[in-house]
Amino acid sequence: MRAAYYKGQKHFSVSEGQEKAPRPTEAKIRVAYCGICGTDLHIYHGKMDARTGHNRITGHECSGEIVELGRDVTDFRVGDRVVVRPLASCGDCPACAAGHSHICHNLNFMGVDSEGAFQEYWTVPAKLLHRVPEKISLKQAALAEPLAVACHDVRLGEVKAGEYVVVLGGGPIGLLVALVARERGARVLVSEINSYRLGLARELGLEAANPKEQDLVQLVKRESGTAGADVVFEVTGTEAGAELMTQLPKTRGRIVVVAIYSFRPTVDLFGFFWRELHVCGARVYEAEDFEESLRLLAEGLAADTLISGVHPLGDLQATFEHLEADPRAMKTLIDCRA
Amino acid sequence: MRAAYYKGQKHFSVSEGQEKAPRPTEAKIRVAYCGICGTDLHIYHGKMDARTGHNRITGHECSGEIVELGRDVTDFRVGDRVVVRPLASCGDCPACAAGHSHICHNLNFMGVDSEGAFQEYWTVPAKLLHRVPEKISLKQAALAEPLAVACHDVRLGEVKAGEYVVVLGGGPIGLLVALVARERGARVLVSEINSYRLGLARELGLEAANPKEQDLVQLVKRESGTAGADVVFEVTGTEAGAELMTQLPKTRGRIVVVAIYSFRPTVDLFGFFWRELHVCGARVYEAEDFEESLRLLAEGLAADTLISGVHPLGDLQATFEHLEADPRAMKTLIDCRA
Ligand SMILES: [Zn+2]
Ligand SMILES: [Zn+2]
Ligand SMILES: [Zn+2]
Ligand SMILES: [Zn+2]
Repeated sequence: MRAAYYKGQKHFSVSEGQEKAPRPTEAKIRVAYCGICGTDLHIYHGKMDARTGHNRITGHECSGEIVELGRDVTDFRVGDRVVVRPLASCGDCPACAAGHSHICHNLNFMGVDSEGAFQEYWTVPAKLLHRVPEKISLKQAALAEPLAVACHDVRLGEVKAGEYVVVLGGGPIGLLVALVARERGARVLVSEINSYRLGLARELGLEAANPKEQDLVQLVKRESGTAGADVVFEVTGTEAGAELMTQLPKTRGRIVVVAIYSFRPTVDLFGFFWRELHVCGARVYEAEDFEESLRLLAEGLAADTLISGVHPLGDLQATFEHLEADPRAMKTLIDCRA
Repeated sequence: MRAAYYKGQKHFSVSEGQEKAPRPTEAKIRVAYCGICGTDLHIYHGKMDARTGHNRITGHECSGEIVELGRDVTDFRVGDRVVVRPLASCGDCPACAAGHSHICHNLNFMGVDSEGAFQEYWTVPAKLLHRVPEKISLKQAALAEPLAVACHDVRLGEVKAGEYVVVLGGGPIGLLVALVARERGARVLVSEINSYRLGLARELGLEAANPKEQDLVQLVKRESGTAGADVVFEVTGTEAGAELMTQLPKTRGRIVVVAIYSFRPTVDLFGFFWRELHVCGARVYEAEDFEESLRLLAEGLAADTLISGVHPLGDLQATFEHLEADPRAMKTLIDCRA
């Protein structure tokens, strides 16, 4: 079978890989689609070499079909269409002991810390599988992982019907957060500076504003009858985002830090005190978020509008090279069967 | 009667003031003791002139006795010993509408934004009074206000029995937070750099450490079996505090920002994301916090150990001058009858 190996310094090599027979509790998946996300681009840019090394099969947003099952797996059958929740936890650390295995202190994020899905066949623990509902195509199902991130974020943000939500950053995760929050019955405003993404947000029926062209603080005040936003999702990872996130919420409003900051921004801690703001960080997802994600896809959530390209596994290198420079790229899928 | 007027530029003038007859819903209090807090020192240093002006009677942490009642006040009697919750809210703004009148957008913090307690008689809305339980002296009762701050902080921090709590900063509020958290059944560590305050914390039976002499992160890890602290209270208002507050909590741990930051510190938002930390700001108190404060005082909470001096109203100027330079000052009371 073919597999793509990250070789360091912006280089992938697609070559012959080793199919693995499933151990008793594992399943072997024929990978259909696998999305490329920000983490993959980070790896490509050599920023995660300490975790990946220079011979890693990456990719963690896949859909596929079970082709072989370990002898102890009873709740799946060969032929089942599935997605993989790519988190292997240690079961032993304080986070696991407290029931938060998705933020295990020794988390193995598959496709980063161990072998991932940019290959034709991927063998994984069966307990990480979620069955894909009938209505959903395998292409749509490849969005289950990023959508599960959004479900987790919105769940931790405790978004309720009728609330006014602002999402800072209209990339794939930001727009998915916005869609899920709207699904909860919230009114949602997306803040984004890239005009293509602004247009896409509006195409999805979301309110959207460019904070470089409009005073977002005034806009949110006006639209909320001076109160401010109920919940703000910070998905930009920028100094401007860290600033806006404290200016927009209402008194006792909530902020969810979704972005992965690569530096330490200055933060208005006085504002936290003054308006008794709540902030929480949100990382990856738990099993229930994957189930919710698949449920929303089955109900017709328009997540696949974000798919901006599908390319064969053999073109992985060219696809990454192109992605770097494309301001219109949202979610690119790799077809591992092609 | 005598009253102390803040005249600007570190100057108080104690002179003849006007007693006010209570309006129908008001009560006239003969002030006994009134504590001096950080806010009062800020005023003294001219940093709140925009709010106080240059002829304000300040002071907001008082105990006293009712000497006269407006005709519509039915739930108090002349002679009742009381404390004043010095927050007058507008009743109209989004915060008031949401039931958070203590953080009203138009809050009148009495003793700052309007007349306070550094005078012999203070006339206030009766709805802001709390009756002092029998067991408590009027001197102890003057601690009800700062202790109510601590009750509010610990309540918002959701401190539970058996939890490991770290309080960054061992000034009066920090130590009161530590005492209330211990009362909730938590194990409490106080972090403080002033050796006098460290000694006082230990005198109160609290664990205490100097973060300049010990690696606090390692200490907290060791003492929590690597997990980290359940709750961290940031009461220092410093860059070092903003740094430590994100390093100490366990995965999904809580941080309560109590300090009033006068600048914008850099904050490790990546850490928030990575460990799904929760932060909330906590400001002043609600009625239930005052009730809890008086209950804890009646049960014998050793808050009055923090009283480091009692001086007559006539010596207000000298008392403030002395306080500025005294590293051993904790809670100084003014006796407004003397
Ligand atoms: Zn991803
Ligand atoms: Zn673990
Ligand atoms: Zn005070
Ligand atoms: Zn109000």
